[in-house]
Amino acid sequence: MQTFPLTFYTNPESRGCIVRRMLEELAVPYETVALDYAGQMKTAEYLAINPLGKVPAITHGKLVVTETAAICAYLADAFIDKRLAPALSSAQRGIYYRWLFFAAGPLEMVTTAKACGWNLNENPQMVGSGSYEDTVDALEQALADGPYICGEQFTAADVYVGSHVSWGIQFKTLPERSIFKDYADRLAKRPAFQRADQLDAELKAKMAAK
Amino acid sequence: MQTFPLTFYTNPESRGCIVRRMLEELAVPYETVALDYAGQMKTAEYLAINPLGKVPAITHGKLVVTETAAICAYLADAFIDKRLAPALSSAQRGIYYRWLFFAAGPLEMVTTAKACGWNLNENPQMVGSGSYEDTVDALEQALADGPYICGEQFTAADVYVGSHVSWGIQFKTLPERSIFKDYADRLAKRPAFQRADQLDAELKAKMAAK
Ligand SMILES: N[C@@H](CCC(=O)N[C@@H](CS)C(=O)NCC(=O)O)C(=O)O
Ligand SMILES: N[C@@H](CCC(=O)N[C@@H](CS)C(=O)NCC(=O)O)C(=O)O
Repeated sequence: MQTFPLTFYTNPESRGCIVRRMLEELAVPYETVALDYAGQMKTAEYLAINPLGKVPAITHGKLVVTETAAICAYLADAFIDKRLAPALSSAQRGIYYRWLFFAAGPLEMVTTAKACGWNLNENPQMVGSGSYEDTVDALEQALADGPYICGEQFTAADVYVGSHVSWGIQFKTLPERSIFKDYADRLAKRPAFQRADQLDAELKAKMAAK
Repeated sequence: MQTFPLTFYTNPESRGCIVRRMLEELAVPYETVALDYAGQMKTAEYLAINPLGKVPAITHGKLVVTETAAICAYLADAFIDKRLAPALSSAQRGIYYRWLFFAAGPLEMVTTAKACGWNLNENPQMVGSGSYEDTVDALEQALADGPYICGEQFTAADVYVGSHVSWGIQFKTLPERSIFKDYADRLAKRPAFQRADQLDAELKAKMAAK
């Protein structure tokens, strides 16, 4: 697997930054394809990769993966020696998936609903997230023990959930609780995280100059 | 791992039916704890398992897993010999995660939005799902080759995505396209699926009789 060419489709102001952090944590070679929001995400060529016309996406050889959390989980398994996923038959894998899917499902749902003014509480049997308050409290509980979601091991779940937490604080879709802030600060100190954000800042400047 | 006691918290009219199908596909022993919507999901004891007060959840020894897709992915890995997940470093793993996360994120989002009357198209950069039409079309594309999401291998992604598809048709949150119907029919023929639904029908009758 690891020797196939890896291509990363992104925009420096998008959820692609999460995948960039993952790639830099892995420290594997990859090629970046930058797409603007003005139309490059909606070309036939790119729609063949992601029919939603969204970034991020990766190709690894002939394989296409979309969905930020899926990309993180896939890369962690593809490069399992880098230890960014818990072992296959460990209890940690359960915790890892729990919070990856929690962030991709309920957490995305409540923060989007908050930003868009949707009412989540009409039908709790149908709406999979729980209320905003319950969902935020559950996230806080998941991070309370630390330092990472799976305990001592930093994993792809931290790359993904951590990015939700830092953006949530920044864009005020999450409250500024100390557990959230401490966790975000801990992640922001990682060299791979800083390298990733630096690369995206450079890409943003380059795209603006065009 | 496999020798720890496995407990399944559910309600026979809930997303728990998906986990039931997964457990029956695995054919491993488990204990079922039925919770009604009237209050049993909100006891302190159950909130310690799922702070959202929702089903399904499982415990496997001391481990707790919530989120339907996470439970499916975890069980597939914990019982990897049952071949309900693609191998760790295969391209199939990327496809598997892609559609698991697609269903847990975008697909849950658009079907919920449709049922609740939310407008997804206001802010496509923020809303992670894409429009209803694009999301449904992407799902159709994923199922077009078949017979399963990962090709010839039936996996936990089919248990999860397949349940979304059959319910979507049933509750009219998905259009009745032939690719969706054929896929749902294919899954409904599986002995494990039928056993699971039978067990949930019996549980429902038992709870109603109380
Ligand atoms: N569920 C997707 C969401 C992807 C997404 O919404 N990307 C945005 C940028 S953050 C995008 O490309 N929007 C462009 C569009 O929808 O037109 C994921 O988690 O990767
Ligand atoms: N995101 C969760 C959703 C779970 C969920 O919403 N369960 C519903 C039944 S399908 C529930 O227990 N609702 C009770 C409530 O919220 O009070 C998952 O995928 O498991």
